Amino acid sequence: MARVVVDVMLKPEILDPQGKAVHGALPRLGFEGVVAVRQGKRFELELDGDVTDDRLAEIRNAAETLLSNPVIEDYTVRVEQ
Amino acid sequence: MARVVVDVMLKPEILDPQGKAVHGALPRLGFEGVVAVRQGKRFELELDGDVTDDRLAEIRNAAETLLSNPVIEDYTVRVEQ
Repeated sequence: MARVVVDVMLKPEILDPQGKAVHGALPRLGFEGVVAVRQGKRFELELDGDVTDDRLAEIRNAAETLLSNPVIEDYTVRVEQ
Repeated sequence: MARVVVDVMLKPEILDPQGKAVHGALPRLGFEGVVAVRQGKRFELELDGDVTDDRLAEIRNAAETLLSNPVIEDYTVRVEQ
């Protein structure tokens, strides 16, 4: 059993209203010193068996077609210990 | 300039319909061998200056009060290099 994490974030040039809302709320709640906030999605995929290069490539493919919109989002895939 | 990442995931005992939907879609798209999927949120906070223990404690406080609902969600805070 292995866990693969896919993080999906809006590309830097895309406006992120959720992150902006969090950024605006922080000082109102007394938290200072945060310059910027970006909000994205995190997917945890549990695989049966081991993580091979082939399966990682397949997950990268799924990240690109199902989990993210590659026009506006970037993704990273990593194996979590 | 430092980046702190806050990951917010539903607690394991809470049903995750988004993750379930992704899990159901994977085999239809030809991706096999994924046993479970959980979907959560990822926040990237850019701080001015260095990350001290005090500021990390403050961000943990923000994660608990603003970024997550501690009744149904768990969060992790980590400094990203």
